[in-house]
Amino acid sequence: MKRIAAIVKQNRPEGVRIAAQLAEWLSERGVELYLDKEVAQAAPRALPVDVEKIPGLVDLVVVLGGDGTLLSVARLVSEKGIPILGVNLGGLGFLTEVSLAELYPVMEKVLEGDFETSSRMTLQGEVIRGKENLGGYTVLNDAVINTGVLARIIELETYVDGHILTTFRADGLIVTSPTGSTGYSLAAGGSIIHPSLSCIGITPICPHMLTNRPILVSDMSTIEVVLKTRGVEVMLTLDGQVGFALEVGDRVRIRKGTSVVQLVKNPMRNYFSVLREKLKWGQ
Amino acid sequence: MKRIAAIVKQNRPEGVRIAAQLAEWLSERGVELYLDKEVAQAAPRALPVDVEKIPGLVDLVVVLGGDGTLLSVARLVSEKGIPILGVNLGGLGFLTEVSLAELYPVMEKVLEGDFETSSRMTLQGEVIRGKENLGGYTVLNDAVINTGVLARIIELETYVDGHILTTFRADGLIVTSPTGSTGYSLAAGGSIIHPSLSCIGITPICPHMLTNRPILVSDMSTIEVVLKTRGVEVMLTLDGQVGFALEVGDRVRIRKGTSVVQLVKNPMRNYFSVLREKLKWGQ
Amino acid sequence: MKRIAAIVKQNRPEGVRIAAQLAEWLSERGVELYLDKEVAQAAPRALPVDVEKIPGLVDLVVVLGGDGTLLSVARLVSEKGIPILGVNLGGLGFLTEVSLAELYPVMEKVLEGDFETSSRMTLQGEVIRGKENLGGYTVLNDAVINTGVLARIIELETYVDGHILTTFRADGLIVTSPTGSTGYSLAAGGSIIHPSLSCIGITPICPHMLTNRPILVSDMSTIEVVLKTRGVEVMLTLDGQVGFALEVGDRVRIRKGTSVVQLVKNPMRNYFSVLREKLKWGQ
Amino acid sequence: MKRIAAIVKQNRPEGVRIAAQLAEWLSERGVELYLDKEVAQAAPRALPVDVEKIPGLVDLVVVLGGDGTLLSVARLVSEKGIPILGVNLGGLGFLTEVSLAELYPVMEKVLEGDFETSSRMTLQGEVIRGKENLGGYTVLNDAVINTGVLARIIELETYVDGHILTTFRADGLIVTSPTGSTGYSLAAGGSIIHPSLSCIGITPICPHMLTNRPILVSDMSTIEVVLKTRGVEVMLTLDGQVGFALEVGDRVRIRKGTSVVQLVKNPMRNYFSVLREKLKWGQ
Repeated sequence: MKRIAAIVKQNRPEGVRIAAQLAEWLSERGVELYLDKEVAQAAPRALPVDVEKIPGLVDLVVVLGGDGTLLSVARLVSEKGIPILGVNLGGLGFLTEVSLAELYPVMEKVLEGDFETSSRMTLQGEVIRGKENLGGYTVLNDAVINTGVLARIIELETYVDGHILTTFRADGLIVTSPTGSTGYSLAAGGSIIHPSLSCIGITPICPHMLTNRPILVSDMSTIEVVLKTRGVEVMLTLDGQVGFALEVGDRVRIRKGTSVVQLVKNPMRNYFSVLREKLKWGQ
Repeated sequence: MKRIAAIVKQNRPEGVRIAAQLAEWLSERGVELYLDKEVAQAAPRALPVDVEKIPGLVDLVVVLGGDGTLLSVARLVSEKGIPILGVNLGGLGFLTEVSLAELYPVMEKVLEGDFETSSRMTLQGEVIRGKENLGGYTVLNDAVINTGVLARIIELETYVDGHILTTFRADGLIVTSPTGSTGYSLAAGGSIIHPSLSCIGITPICPHMLTNRPILVSDMSTIEVVLKTRGVEVMLTLDGQVGFALEVGDRVRIRKGTSVVQLVKNPMRNYFSVLREKLKWGQ
Repeated sequence: MKRIAAIVKQNRPEGVRIAAQLAEWLSERGVELYLDKEVAQAAPRALPVDVEKIPGLVDLVVVLGGDGTLLSVARLVSEKGIPILGVNLGGLGFLTEVSLAELYPVMEKVLEGDFETSSRMTLQGEVIRGKENLGGYTVLNDAVINTGVLARIIELETYVDGHILTTFRADGLIVTSPTGSTGYSLAAGGSIIHPSLSCIGITPICPHMLTNRPILVSDMSTIEVVLKTRGVEVMLTLDGQVGFALEVGDRVRIRKGTSVVQLVKNPMRNYFSVLREKLKWGQ
Repeated sequence: MKRIAAIVKQNRPEGVRIAAQLAEWLSERGVELYLDKEVAQAAPRALPVDVEKIPGLVDLVVVLGGDGTLLSVARLVSEKGIPILGVNLGGLGFLTEVSLAELYPVMEKVLEGDFETSSRMTLQGEVIRGKENLGGYTVLNDAVINTGVLARIIELETYVDGHILTTFRADGLIVTSPTGSTGYSLAAGGSIIHPSLSCIGITPICPHMLTNRPILVSDMSTIEVVLKTRGVEVMLTLDGQVGFALEVGDRVRIRKGTSVVQLVKNPMRNYFSVLREKLKWGQ
């Protein structure tokens, strides 16, 4: 491992400072650290780079931020399968499971090659309008279809592998990967899904029909959701970040993505200890 | 009971036809039926009226539509305390608990004065921006604060009688009357509240914190919700119909309304039989 | 306030030690402390008393224990309306909202008469078998009907004021007061009910029918639950402590109790701050 | 397919009558129908058999009853992998997805070999007391640990693959297969899991900690649950039928079973249409 990139959460001066220290620490160990040009200005021992070029250049990406930052990095590097090490600048995240205090101990192990990664399946969503495929996106957490402020209930005709599941009348619908199950889906009543499972979760948001409970289907299934409500503002949101305005009749098709995200495991924690801490289950 | 008005759900030709029949039926019994000018064109025995003048004119308002139509009528006549008879053009509503087949048998009893009403408390919401009170609204069901399509989680600092309850991090917040408890609040995880109870329900929508459960407070309490999130589209929606765009720092104040809505009870049903039918509890 | 009793949680030597200190502290202020005979042996400045005689003797009862201990004290003194001060030997309870560290500061205010009480409605349950009334019980939290280990689903035909609500097919049924709403009912999906509200909550436990949601009715309502399942072990449990074996056909009748429990408020907290701490809502 | 057995729900005379007709219908097509000795007395064209001998004798088992009957048949024949055709004498079951009206049309297809089966994973549970393994059981739906009527909350220290998950303080715990997900687990708040998924669901029953949400782990995981509460009546129940009394310190170990249950699919329905009908999702 000779080349590492670090991506810092925007507008976090603390992250920039840590990136500069990390550059020095790595440089002493003969490893180059690449940083976004702007961040690199504050880090004399780092090398500046265009963020888009990172995927072809490095062996590891360190995220200095929170889960949101890691999600956008995952979109950037998932096709190349480059491992991602998530360091949380605040407390602890579901994805950024290394705290600041643990950064250097974990990095030492990583440089020695003494680390494991957790392979996370992705979801791939695309929008079909009439006969046209408007293109696709890959996400690590979830694809969410929901309404704007003025309409509440929308009708979403939902298919699994071509079979009608039901027409949800709800605020919206979350299609989640196991990794995303502890995010929005959990808040909407979904179960926690261990990331080693390969499956797709369908969680309606505040469904009108109380028996419309979250449902989990195989990772080989294709989910299709057709917007049946006319004249309302409806958006497809990807990993809570990228939005795409939908029109009546649009068909959102979601299935397992071809790329897999490699998250470097924190050797001092496991999945369940992160769960216990994040959900305050106590000791 | 000499003067009755009927309000028909918009764009429902069936409702217009029924209104015309009702006008004839009432006319034979010496009772005048007032209809909106446009609807009255199709009803020779009805009297045309401006909808705004109905509250001072009639002894009863018949709603021919669904719960949504009744909610807007309630806003119109609640201050005068005129009883409302809700007739559902489709199946059955929580508020429009008279079916089409039951319309005339129920009307006969109403003309004889042999009917009861269910008194429903209202909620009154107002928005305070800085030192300015932007005005108030009265609702029968609920006042909802929620986000637009692009933001998900907003922060809502919530007070009860001046005491901080918590800062909800959620999709939004529903403040509901007992009457509204079977609507959006139920879909968001709230309890069913019998309309004879006087209380106010606070139901967070998909809260980030899983222990933020719905909470019920006294009908003498004042709820205040301060929007803490900047730069996102957030709306206060009243009875699912009237919207009001909120800005960061806006304080939404909700308490029991001064007016009471009188709903004519269907003598062939009670609250629990409507519940069982609407929620498909079986026999 | 000249006479106070303290009741110590069983098998808690720490509680006995605190009771002895309290006796001394009160004695210096000219107030007598009455203790159960056994506990009094370790408290030279206290007066021994039969627990059953406490209700007619003292002006205040101090509970040194947890919520469970307070519930049994409430059954003892509720008819006389004697105020109860709950001191939690561990962290903090919903009912025992004074911590050990706060005991003496709060007691000082109490002796000065500078305190408020929170009046809590009770529930009264009785069992009717055939034509015989098998007697009644008064509880502060809840009356629970549930199955033994071998049967799961039982059928409970449930009436409110003589009107059938539904026949629940469930593990059981919780009838809760507002005070009990943060106990078993919350774990079973019920809402939090502010103790100033007067109402009765009906919360089915794991109902077979997913739309059987918790329902709140007026405190003037009478709930009747008839056990329809034959040959299974079913128990009525009162405040999680007293049990009563039910037979098929038994009718459990629950309504507002005639007595009111007076809980001394901790002046350093309010209801919402206790909620936030117990449910870990954060600051 | 030359030999078929039918198993009739106990005490259902209607089932006996249908079995007799089926024997005649099959006999006309050169197929032998085996029935339990007692049932066979009413079916002249059937062959009597000891139920225990069925697994080695026939090519198909027809269940005439409900889901409960099918679960006990599954325990009987799962090791041999004999397909099971579930015919529901009442409406429709999740497992018995053939209605009476569909019996003969489906049987015709089965005799022609024109049918598919749905392979369902099983769970295998065993109890370890001290150093002794008290033996194991295989279930199709779920293994449930719960309390008797007198204790409510028990402590269940729960491990996944040797890692502590948490100590649940709850009424009990459900470990479910995908097939069992629409049973008790759904009533306790679990998600619906498509039976093509291979995974194990862990659903706490009314947990004290509201963030203890259902969690799904890999079908290669081993779940271990240690009873930590002394002196209470606790039972391990298998598929809602077989019970096993647990003692403090007992370790219940649950993992994927070695046998697979083959359910004959109703060609006129699919999994989602059964879901929609059972959960009353409407058309």
